[in-house]
Amino acid sequence: MSKKVLISDPTLRDGNHAIAHKLTPEQVAKYAKAAEAAKVPIVEVGHGNGIGASSFQVGLAVAADYDLLKAARDNLSDSKLGIHSIPGFSTIKRDIQNAIDVGVDVFRIACHCTEADITEKHIGYLREKGKTVHGVLMMSHMASPEVLAEEAAKMELYGAEAVVFMDSAGAYLPQDVSERVAKLVSNLRIPVGFHGHNNLGMAVANTVAAVESGASIVDGTVRGFGAGAGNTQLEVLVAVLEKLGYDTGIDLYRILDAADLAEKEFIPVVPFVSSTSVVSGLSGVFSGFIKHVNRVALEFGVDPRDVFFELGKRKAVAGQEDMIVEVAVALSRKK
Amino acid sequence: MSKKVLISDPTLRDGNHAIAHKLTPEQVAKYAKAAEAAKVPIVEVGHGNGIGASSFQVGLAVAADYDLLKAARDNLSDSKLGIHSIPGFSTIKRDIQNAIDVGVDVFRIACHCTEADITEKHIGYLREKGKTVHGVLMMSHMASPEVLAEEAAKMELYGAEAVVFMDSAGAYLPQDVSERVAKLVSNLRIPVGFHGHNNLGMAVANTVAAVESGASIVDGTVRGFGAGAGNTQLEVLVAVLEKLGYDTGIDLYRILDAADLAEKEFIPVVPFVSSTSVVSGLSGVFSGFIKHVNRVALEFGVDPRDVFFELGKRKAVAGQEDMIVEVAVALSRKK
Repeated sequence: MSKKVLISDPTLRDGNHAIAHKLTPEQVAKYAKAAEAAKVPIVEVGHGNGIGASSFQVGLAVAADYDLLKAARDNLSDSKLGIHSIPGFSTIKRDIQNAIDVGVDVFRIACHCTEADITEKHIGYLREKGKTVHGVLMMSHMASPEVLAEEAAKMELYGAEAVVFMDSAGAYLPQDVSERVAKLVSNLRIPVGFHGHNNLGMAVANTVAAVESGASIVDGTVRGFGAGAGNTQLEVLVAVLEKLGYDTGIDLYRILDAADLAEKEFIPVVPFVSSTSVVSGLSGVFSGFIKHVNRVALEFGVDPRDVFFELGKRKAVAGQEDMIVEVAVALSRKK
Repeated sequence: MSKKVLISDPTLRDGNHAIAHKLTPEQVAKYAKAAEAAKVPIVEVGHGNGIGASSFQVGLAVAADYDLLKAARDNLSDSKLGIHSIPGFSTIKRDIQNAIDVGVDVFRIACHCTEADITEKHIGYLREKGKTVHGVLMMSHMASPEVLAEEAAKMELYGAEAVVFMDSAGAYLPQDVSERVAKLVSNLRIPVGFHGHNNLGMAVANTVAAVESGASIVDGTVRGFGAGAGNTQLEVLVAVLEKLGYDTGIDLYRILDAADLAEKEFIPVVPFVSSTSVVSGLSGVFSGFIKHVNRVALEFGVDPRDVFFELGKRKAVAGQEDMIVEVAVALSRKK
């Protein structure tokens, strides 16, 4: 009997990053129908940064969370409906309750890789309500495998029924993923998951490495639709896992159809590895910094790529855009 | 001391497939200059199917081989000028002599993976002239590792100074590549090379696997510019090999610049893994069949993907387009 792998598909959530959160309920409905036909186990829906995140700062969504979730809910029956939720962007009273009301099945409570503490209340609340909850550690390359395992253990303690770690900057090579999966699997009693990005062209290979090292939940989006260089390409992952003898439960022809539909309906440009993506992956810095970095680098007469690598050394994360000027000044003085 | 890897860049040859062989001498000159600045060791130029291949059957090139090669030659000094040449498409008298006259440095003599015999005269002729010659085995997934090693040994016997095997349909996973490289390395005295395609999203991972298994020559094109799902993406490969401690001699920033220039000058759409690419990679059938397959499948009321998989079982190769109708008829009878 072949080993089972649970696939979660955040096309309608991570993909929202690629189009400035402009997915409409109509598009969500169409794709959800196609994903249901392909027997995708979990369909994740919402603003790129999760429910409650729509704002001037990280991007205003075209549609309200409720309308997007409702459009998916009405078209999913065997496939489960999932959300991504970062406490702070989301609140229990407003957003989590809203998601419960609309009938979400799988709640993914996410945070920066070293801040599991902020997920405790949300995970606890949802578990009390009898909901399925997974913990998510983002930008995981910024923590050592040991720290990552400690943070994951906290989430398990809070009641998470699985922990997924994300390669948000696409910084890993397969051996990096294997090492972390092995560490988490040996430290936790609950299933371990992996979510990849393609900055170094390794998203599919990294995801396969995760599965081969013991991860039992992996994420993928059709055509890799997602932030920056994109995610692990779901229809390719399904093909490769099938070729390797794993059982994803997903129908290959139908997921190829779903990918074709998504491309036609809401993917204006299929994600690819741009030069910026490579530098982002190598430096481990969020590619969303690129516009600021280019502007500041030009102003101070330094190479934007040097700025990225220096930001990487200083472990800059989203929200620390002010560090860009600091780095550019320092680099221009060195010259 | 880090291990050296020799990179050959067929952006201006395999990329020609993606734009129906429409590269102009001006575009070639611009890219060659950028590749020279990036210290790319070998820049391969020409019609997608190699010198002498321009024809109604496989596609008429916009520019003559001589003009493309001359444009590159005039802009390369430290970087070497390479060609791809398939005996039959090319003749010694006309095309090989032409390439010698224009000053080509590296001659790659290529054939289907089981037909090394047809390269004997061309390899011998060039070696007599004192030229650098590599043998190339295309569609290598159609031969067993043992047969591939035998064919490679023939090329070595004819005088080839390296043998490169190509994953023309993008059908391999890393372990497939490792197995073949190990087999070739242990059977030959000359260096072994690998040329990947991205149908299963594995081109970079496969190429890294080749290097880690002992290949010392690998191919990559900027933005993966090439046939179907595209090639191993060169600027990503350089970044990943550097991260792993290999020495490619290529300047990372300058190859990123070359990639940006190529995208601007002659890449209308960056290659991506389409649904057809996945089916092509899984079935091991050349993706160029897609138009015929779609037409015939519609006519006989069968699924074009079933046609691909059946063609794969029958080991169809380019030139055997008549087999498509045969397969469609057989499938429609089964229904």
